[in-house]
Amino acid sequence: MQAQLIALDWGTTSLRAYLLGPAGQVQQMRSLACGIMQLPSTARQIADQLCVDGFELAFDEACGDWLDANPGIPVIACGMVGSAQGWCEAPYRDTPASLAALGTALQVVQSVRGVQVHIVPGVIQRSTLPNVMRGEETQVLGVMQSHPHLNDCLIGLPGSHSKWVQVQDGCLMHFDTFMTGELYAAVCEHTILGRTQQHSEQFDGLAFERGVRVALSPDGQLGPLSTLFSARTLGLTGQLTPVQQPDYVSGLLIGHELSSLGRALRQRRGDQPLPAIILIGNSQLCERYQRALQVCGFADVSLAGQATEQGLWHLAQAAGLLHHTQPEG
Amino acid sequence: MQAQLIALDWGTTSLRAYLLGPAGQVQQMRSLACGIMQLPSTARQIADQLCVDGFELAFDEACGDWLDANPGIPVIACGMVGSAQGWCEAPYRDTPASLAALGTALQVVQSVRGVQVHIVPGVIQRSTLPNVMRGEETQVLGVMQSHPHLNDCLIGLPGSHSKWVQVQDGCLMHFDTFMTGELYAAVCEHTILGRTQQHSEQFDGLAFERGVRVALSPDGQLGPLSTLFSARTLGLTGQLTPVQQPDYVSGLLIGHELSSLGRALRQRRGDQPLPAIILIGNSQLCERYQRALQVCGFADVSLAGQATEQGLWHLAQAAGLLHHTQPEG
Repeated sequence: MQAQLIALDWGTTSLRAYLLGPAGQVQQMRSLACGIMQLPSTARQIADQLCVDGFELAFDEACGDWLDANPGIPVIACGMVGSAQGWCEAPYRDTPASLAALGTALQVVQSVRGVQVHIVPGVIQRSTLPNVMRGEETQVLGVMQSHPHLNDCLIGLPGSHSKWVQVQDGCLMHFDTFMTGELYAAVCEHTILGRTQQHSEQFDGLAFERGVRVALSPDGQLGPLSTLFSARTLGLTGQLTPVQQPDYVSGLLIGHELSSLGRALRQRRGDQPLPAIILIGNSQLCERYQRALQVCGFADVSLAGQATEQGLWHLAQAAGLLHHTQPEG
Repeated sequence: MQAQLIALDWGTTSLRAYLLGPAGQVQQMRSLACGIMQLPSTARQIADQLCVDGFELAFDEACGDWLDANPGIPVIACGMVGSAQGWCEAPYRDTPASLAALGTALQVVQSVRGVQVHIVPGVIQRSTLPNVMRGEETQVLGVMQSHPHLNDCLIGLPGSHSKWVQVQDGCLMHFDTFMTGELYAAVCEHTILGRTQQHSEQFDGLAFERGVRVALSPDGQLGPLSTLFSARTLGLTGQLTPVQQPDYVSGLLIGHELSSLGRALRQRRGDQPLPAIILIGNSQLCERYQRALQVCGFADVSLAGQATEQGLWHLAQAAGLLHHTQPEG
């Protein structure tokens, strides 16, 4: 079956390329370590020109053969590729942002092959402390395709920078960011806590849950700057083994994130119960969050797979890029 | 005048050696980058033996000539040198810990020269989340010498691991730890926030205070895992220049530390006013904390200089090491 769309999920550290068929099904997928902060740098011939531009090189590496085999196939991309440090800046759309309408705001960059790459804009929330996303809006849209009746639910996207997104009537209304994943890595690799840690392939659920409960406890009110030190002192006093420490620290940080999030939700929602939650992302990380959310009193938590390519397919449809298929509406 | 005591402030990254005269006055001081995590490793002759032990090498480098010139002079040391990774472990004393009585619990290690080095124990608080210190107890004792009427005041020791110490009737009653300094360094050097920062010699007090106020604001309730991201988004939206970002982040983290500390104090003290505060440590860092404490509503804040050598002098007296002087009592 003929390929219809090349969809790129192009972030800071990685580039995933999808070749999609008539109904948006994945025909091929490739994952490259060519995020915008680690682009290739070896000059190469592309379209009869000696090319040194990292974006062109990565683009060609990711899907040059697909472009050759499918002349005229449209290309769409989301993520940090549209940032100021990206291939071409796609200005942010303000909240409340209609997710379907993002497809009418694509930024176009022309590659040396003459192919147009359509870049999805990110979303900005101009609150006192502004918030931004690039790529997550497309994931949220993708999940909405398989959960068409999303209502009053909160979408969680755990990761280096976790996002918690409130969607209403197809609009992205509000979101918060927590740098939990990136801070976890910095704490374990670049502070004294890492010196006594021993890493294991196996997830220690009890140590993780202990960390979550500490964050929620009266001791947790001193905040993560203080409770983190307990990973060291519980180790010194023989109450936490070196191999338990990484998962304990992970539980602590995720626990502080969810404790703050829960408090903010309760303030915003008054007497209403906590919303249902859908988690999108890496399955192991989502399982950690699911476990922590239960400890925090969130009763209704479900997992959705990664859905970036479905979001990109939907945006390409909305933008009228898919000439051979019938737009959904 | 004859030297009476060699006093060593021996931490993780540095070793400060003091040669003290009859009333404890400093005759000489040396600062070496020979903390217990970066000891010398080049073998050398010491007391007619080829020595490879890093502690012996550092000790000889710091004060070998003083020992030669003052036979029989006593030696006392505090800090991480007494930890499990130190020269000789000096077991922790439990809170409430009589500061003067620390002098009766010194641990002795015999150097290859035959000199006895007396090591001050640290203090442990066996709360649900335990807390430990090594070195700060000696600083607190030193400050008490120049502030004999300390009562109902909180002693702050800002640093990599900030300590907040409550002293009553000469006893160390309670303390809290915040990893603020170490986390600040990890955040600036090893997360995305560092990429847009530009460092300057000049302290930007307004950017710092803005960070403190954000931590205290309703937005700050989401905690540092979330507010840290605002250093990036305020930069992206042109509200914070690259050169303002490091001091803004410093203010944010110190603001979160003090906000949590203030809340805990109010809970513990009920209707009593916030305590007077004495800050000990690096003067530039203490000035930051002084400024932030004022924003947080602490009205009575004063600065004390480093006083480790005075604490060590007092402990040596209490231990009866100073044969030529009259103990104070």
